[in-house]
Amino acid sequence: MRKVAIVGAGMMPFGKSPDRTVSDLGREAATRALRDAGLGAAKVEAVWCGSVFGGMLVGQRIMKQLGATGMPVHNVENACSSGSTALREAWWSVASGLCDIALVVGVEKLSALGGGTLPLEAEDHEVSTGMVMPAVYAMRARRYMHEYGLTERDLAAVSVKNHRHGSLNPYAQHRNTCTVEEVLGSRMIATPLTLLQCCPSGDGAAALVLAEPHRARRLTTCPVWIEASVLRSGRFENGFRDMTQSELSNVTISEAYQMAGVSPSDVNVAEVHDAFTIAEVMYYESLGLCPVGDGVRLVRDGDTALGGRVPVNPSGGLLCRGHPLGATGVAQVAELTWQLRGQAGDRQVEGARVAVSQCTGGGIAGFDHGACTVHVLAC
Amino acid sequence: MRKVAIVGAGMMPFGKSPDRTVSDLGREAATRALRDAGLGAAKVEAVWCGSVFGGMLVGQRIMKQLGATGMPVHNVENACSSGSTALREAWWSVASGLCDIALVVGVEKLSALGGGTLPLEAEDHEVSTGMVMPAVYAMRARRYMHEYGLTERDLAAVSVKNHRHGSLNPYAQHRNTCTVEEVLGSRMIATPLTLLQCCPSGDGAAALVLAEPHRARRLTTCPVWIEASVLRSGRFENGFRDMTQSELSNVTISEAYQMAGVSPSDVNVAEVHDAFTIAEVMYYESLGLCPVGDGVRLVRDGDTALGGRVPVNPSGGLLCRGHPLGATGVAQVAELTWQLRGQAGDRQVEGARVAVSQCTGGGIAGFDHGACTVHVLAC
Repeated sequence: MRKVAIVGAGMMPFGKSPDRTVSDLGREAATRALRDAGLGAAKVEAVWCGSVFGGMLVGQRIMKQLGATGMPVHNVENACSSGSTALREAWWSVASGLCDIALVVGVEKLSALGGGTLPLEAEDHEVSTGMVMPAVYAMRARRYMHEYGLTERDLAAVSVKNHRHGSLNPYAQHRNTCTVEEVLGSRMIATPLTLLQCCPSGDGAAALVLAEPHRARRLTTCPVWIEASVLRSGRFENGFRDMTQSELSNVTISEAYQMAGVSPSDVNVAEVHDAFTIAEVMYYESLGLCPVGDGVRLVRDGDTALGGRVPVNPSGGLLCRGHPLGATGVAQVAELTWQLRGQAGDRQVEGARVAVSQCTGGGIAGFDHGACTVHVLAC
Repeated sequence: MRKVAIVGAGMMPFGKSPDRTVSDLGREAATRALRDAGLGAAKVEAVWCGSVFGGMLVGQRIMKQLGATGMPVHNVENACSSGSTALREAWWSVASGLCDIALVVGVEKLSALGGGTLPLEAEDHEVSTGMVMPAVYAMRARRYMHEYGLTERDLAAVSVKNHRHGSLNPYAQHRNTCTVEEVLGSRMIATPLTLLQCCPSGDGAAALVLAEPHRARRLTTCPVWIEASVLRSGRFENGFRDMTQSELSNVTISEAYQMAGVSPSDVNVAEVHDAFTIAEVMYYESLGLCPVGDGVRLVRDGDTALGGRVPVNPSGGLLCRGHPLGATGVAQVAELTWQLRGQAGDRQVEGARVAVSQCTGGGIAGFDHGACTVHVLAC
């Protein structure tokens, strides 16, 4: 197995782009990533494109716009983990020698679907009886409050932190800061989660260029190495589960740490799947940044804010950078690439050497039935 | 790179299943493939699921029904090549040592979408101005007739042959034979292609179990080896192209032959993407079964019928077995697995040792802009 480097990262600012096609969004991100890598599109040997609602052959449509066609193109769907699953497929293809240069694109245009919570699969009985995402995370928040003394103000503080981070990120959908009072005073979505505690719906794209070590060292003086890439699906079980824990993320992160040979104390910066404020607190614990039940302390003490011990979601996270499903997992890794290169501008985590991204998809029925992808990066 | 064997194949009969969920269709095919392999679902280390309209996390929903969750599951979309692209991803993962036992499922429920030609992407100007699939292939048929003397009766004979084959296949959507007169007398879809020259819309699923050589030899006395697996996307070009040739299939098949170390004369049986009668004639030439322009002779002489020199589409092909998009590429390889094992019943090609499947997806705008996957199998 060869090492694999990220040699190019590109994003378009997330937001609403109702007048652009989904492939045009992907083209913009891919163009930026290729320019960052100093590579023409014709050098791409294979493409993986992650999207949920991109429609047929979205990767091929993007490459058609780039004027580079003919190579193998794979379109990947894994709900909110679609982009990070595409990254994992591309990583393995370069690691195993199937290709030397791969392009990964994550793209979504949710504005085409209207607003509100997503048109999830009705096959699962839980969904058809109301267990949509905000409801699931509201229940998790309530249970966490009961078990560990988390307050509504603590939850709101996660959103305040991520808005402050997002205000420093030119790619973020929301670039305004906000106060705890504003978060708590925003419209109630699913008690105790208010509007500003739920990620916005939007459009966006992100892209990465991967290369084997020899090419990587010729292309850049600061390759970012993918030290681990792990994908797992959740275990479906009926009956009691601890709603305050994400078993799926716990397992996937442990496996990634093992593959990378790192421990939680090595992590300098992380991007996690904060689709709702409570999720970020849970994932602190999944990442091992604190003991179980102590996630609330990290928020209160500012440990995960910029300038803290281990900043989480310096990009603003899903809550603020936005969450165009297929784009998210790729955008997380683009952000961490810039962090490790020292190119993150006002939101730079000083001296970051080891970074982790965690991205989950699905997970409605049985809470942990879905997909989770974790990447460990280092420079 | 390790060799990879198919150790299990399963299908459900194609047709209309409006009362079943898409994951239930996939579950049935996967159950049959696992039973064929003599493996419990818990032995599956990774899953690739090909589908176009299966919805979010269709592979995870299938595995949930099988009661085996937790492993990496990847959902793959590549239009009509979705299932065969899933197979290629799974093949490489076993070949490169990422996993030892992989499950591939192809599934589609087109009855959920209503009938008629598919809701293709409107992004391509050609599509929005009427270049839907039947129109593209009608133009190709007209040009082929002009160039090489193909007649409407010759085209109809392809459908008659595939209906005869399909009548012998318990998995086929249509199990009736028909005459040239019936084909020509059926409703006109796009001149010169009549209804019985266009593949039907339907539902279905197919599945394969792949294993590395050591496990394969323990599981079965008749492993079917994947000697080549190639995926290419078409080159988009404006301007003149020879409509009677599928450049994309030509290139992909050549690469697969080279990888497998076989030549056209080695091929004993093939499954090709006969979405329309003219397509099968074109793919004879892509496969090198005859010189360019001679495809018509193979039909007239019965060379590609059961009992002929190199039977093509013994299953009945897309025209008769049916074409539930994501399921098709996997169903083709399931059929060839049974052929190579000598288990194809009344439609058995005697002494088949080398088999080829060819599956294309998309290909509307610019004719060859889409995906093509080719597998060479041997026992």
